[in-house]
Amino acid sequence: MLDNLKEQVCKANCLLPKHGLVTFTWGNVSAIDRESGLVVIKPSGVEYEDLTPDKMVVVNLNGDVVEGDLRPSSDTPTHIHLYKSFEGIGGVVHTHSTNATAFAQARSPISAYGTTHADYFYGDIPCTRELTAAETARYYEENTGRVIVEAFKLIDPVAVPGVVVANHGPFAWGKDAAEAVHNAVVMEEVARMAILMKSINPNSSPIPKYILDKHYNRKHGENAYYGQK
Amino acid sequence: MLDNLKEQVCKANCLLPKHGLVTFTWGNVSAIDRESGLVVIKPSGVEYEDLTPDKMVVVNLNGDVVEGDLRPSSDTPTHIHLYKSFEGIGGVVHTHSTNATAFAQARSPISAYGTTHADYFYGDIPCTRELTAAETARYYEENTGRVIVEAFKLIDPVAVPGVVVANHGPFAWGKDAAEAVHNAVVMEEVARMAILMKSINPNSSPIPKYILDKHYNRKHGENAYYGQK
Amino acid sequence: MLDNLKEQVCKANCLLPKHGLVTFTWGNVSAIDRESGLVVIKPSGVEYEDLTPDKMVVVNLNGDVVEGDLRPSSDTPTHIHLYKSFEGIGGVVHTHSTNATAFAQARSPISAYGTTHADYFYGDIPCTRELTAAETARYYEENTGRVIVEAFKLIDPVAVPGVVVANHGPFAWGKDAAEAVHNAVVMEEVARMAILMKSINPNSSPIPKYILDKHYNRKHGENAYYGQK
Amino acid sequence: MLDNLKEQVCKANCLLPKHGLVTFTWGNVSAIDRESGLVVIKPSGVEYEDLTPDKMVVVNLNGDVVEGDLRPSSDTPTHIHLYKSFEGIGGVVHTHSTNATAFAQARSPISAYGTTHADYFYGDIPCTRELTAAETARYYEENTGRVIVEAFKLIDPVAVPGVVVANHGPFAWGKDAAEAVHNAVVMEEVARMAILMKSINPNSSPIPKYILDKHYNRKHGENAYYGQK
Repeated sequence: MLDNLKEQVCKANCLLPKHGLVTFTWGNVSAIDRESGLVVIKPSGVEYEDLTPDKMVVVNLNGDVVEGDLRPSSDTPTHIHLYKSFEGIGGVVHTHSTNATAFAQARSPISAYGTTHADYFYGDIPCTRELTAAETARYYEENTGRVIVEAFKLIDPVAVPGVVVANHGPFAWGKDAAEAVHNAVVMEEVARMAILMKSINPNSSPIPKYILDKHYNRKHGENAYYGQK
Repeated sequence: MLDNLKEQVCKANCLLPKHGLVTFTWGNVSAIDRESGLVVIKPSGVEYEDLTPDKMVVVNLNGDVVEGDLRPSSDTPTHIHLYKSFEGIGGVVHTHSTNATAFAQARSPISAYGTTHADYFYGDIPCTRELTAAETARYYEENTGRVIVEAFKLIDPVAVPGVVVANHGPFAWGKDAAEAVHNAVVMEEVARMAILMKSINPNSSPIPKYILDKHYNRKHGENAYYGQK
Repeated sequence: MLDNLKEQVCKANCLLPKHGLVTFTWGNVSAIDRESGLVVIKPSGVEYEDLTPDKMVVVNLNGDVVEGDLRPSSDTPTHIHLYKSFEGIGGVVHTHSTNATAFAQARSPISAYGTTHADYFYGDIPCTRELTAAETARYYEENTGRVIVEAFKLIDPVAVPGVVVANHGPFAWGKDAAEAVHNAVVMEEVARMAILMKSINPNSSPIPKYILDKHYNRKHGENAYYGQK
Repeated sequence: MLDNLKEQVCKANCLLPKHGLVTFTWGNVSAIDRESGLVVIKPSGVEYEDLTPDKMVVVNLNGDVVEGDLRPSSDTPTHIHLYKSFEGIGGVVHTHSTNATAFAQARSPISAYGTTHADYFYGDIPCTRELTAAETARYYEENTGRVIVEAFKLIDPVAVPGVVVANHGPFAWGKDAAEAVHNAVVMEEVARMAILMKSINPNSSPIPKYILDKHYNRKHGENAYYGQK
């Protein structure tokens, strides 16, 4: 079942340690098959080097395990909520990557301070509000998805494919698992750049809107002219 | 004698350079066999790449060498004091890992600023008081153990498996040598995140108690639901 | 055509990941054959590990592709403008290296704070002014070249072989592609040193002129005495 | 001639990139044969991977090349001045390691903020005064040695085996080439820790004298008890 997708998800999970985004098992990638509404996700707490496509877990949009001998990532309800809410996405990743998590802990968005950011994120990467005690006590992971979606009320999640969850860490997404991880790498790098920038000039301001537009559109949309056709 | 434990301790010591926690020989891991009251510990000043299980030193709880041709780690009395005081622990590790040592030098606890911390440490990682001149002059290593235990008067060392010793560096522990090293890796990473967070927002506050509870209990206790059963 | 130069440019591009200057495909190197006025440059968006000399793109100084099946780097007009304006240079490189980009985002020059800097850059590495909305909307890449040249009105680009473009990132150059990359590595390292220095002493001042002179002239000009004859 | 020493010096130079202390060729190690008064040093500007023992250059204490086809490091007069002034040392190393150089650029000593420092350096690592214009214009490298020696008027160079030269970078030394490099690694690491510590608590104070004494004497002198006998 979904062999191709399992392979993609397995491969994308293994990119996390390769790109230095994870310590131990602190990250998970999933992807959705929109036709069947099934989500393939990393098993919980399994080391990346032990992952094989057949260990991936298949769940439906109610969170029920449809196939797989292992328990899915404990963050599965967050992934599912994002797939249900953001129709344009096909892959989701969660990590505790160091610099993006520092922003989450500072409860600060990652503003668009440069063209590196603008090439991938069309504006500030938002930080969610803090979950309440009630939201934390029950349905915590699903509620984590809810506060993410709330932060995108006025933002297109396809144009800004990531978020930092207050007190917790980053989530990123994309059209598939590989692109989700790609965006998570970018988020970590622009978070790093923003921290270093602040130590040079704490009062640095975000880039002008017209530069944001220019760079985002160099890589996205019908007038994109970066890369090969 | 204690062949299995020697192998575990040797392996755990070799994890220190692998996880980037040590420069040269600046770290040591031990484990205790509670039945016999014997502690297996790294020999002093020996390179990790030269370690083999038979080079591990066995000492009793009085600090006498029971087996082994080499001298035990100079920090042995600290390890022993921790085993005597904290009954729930089976492994101890000491390093000079960069970011946790920076907290030790700043004489600052590592507060619980995020869920990464809460997943492993149920509250702030304390910083000991400074040793006095008298405590330093005689029985220095044992007194280091004493000020650690003093810092845990109101804290459960099983729930907060680590400390930074003022002016010195981190100690961590766990149910065995491997878990002790695991916790030392986490401590170094949350120390790094906390430093970066402070450079984004120097006034960041620790996470709410209910998030601390939630995350710690996701991974610990009877209602834990992280990982495989 | 220009087989030798293609090989040099290919090799120089592959040095970028080796020296940790790039994430993904975020960097490009070119070189010019001054006799024919032809520029060899990296194809846009191609991974470094997939580069071979025959994939390099040859363009003329009008920006027309003269040879090659792939599209040239989207930054080609910037490279061309630099070759047209700075006669003494033979290679150009653009990256988003972390620390130099932090300076670009802070819109700050990298001052000559030490002899490491003075060994390669004879004075402050300037930061361009911000491009206007009009300059961004049309001929953006060429205008990026223009603001760079503007920043060198009073500076010899051979003596200061690099710049940070406000909001964007570093460009460096040299007598050929290899030297351009060499200078980009130095720029990233002196940017890193400057950031760390500021966290020790935010009011550090640049080095005296006579030390700048001494070190630059140890490595450059007819009285240079560093290295082998 | 001095084959054994050449091998040691070659090996010690090759440790510099291994320990991450150098970019390109920015570091050099030497050692002295006290009996003959001859110094073996790295050739100038040669890559570490190209070094072989027979490429090492032998100079006398007047700075004349006694053996070798290559030019010695341009910093040779500094090394020689240190050997002439500090009788207890047998090896010298100079690098531009990132964190120690940041202290040099900040013109700040590296204070003894923790036991990591105290284990190797018995007190603050001093920062030299700035060289004057006249000292820079002529005999620059020798004068660099002079300001180092000046900084040790009241300090025992065997007990504090390193210095940062204002505006420039670190020098370290030891009983031989290997120990000099060992101390350079420690200096870089304690510089890193000190920078991180300052970002946690800018007002951190150095460790008490009695802890400095304790740790230095654990590893040095007749009552040392670290390592194997």
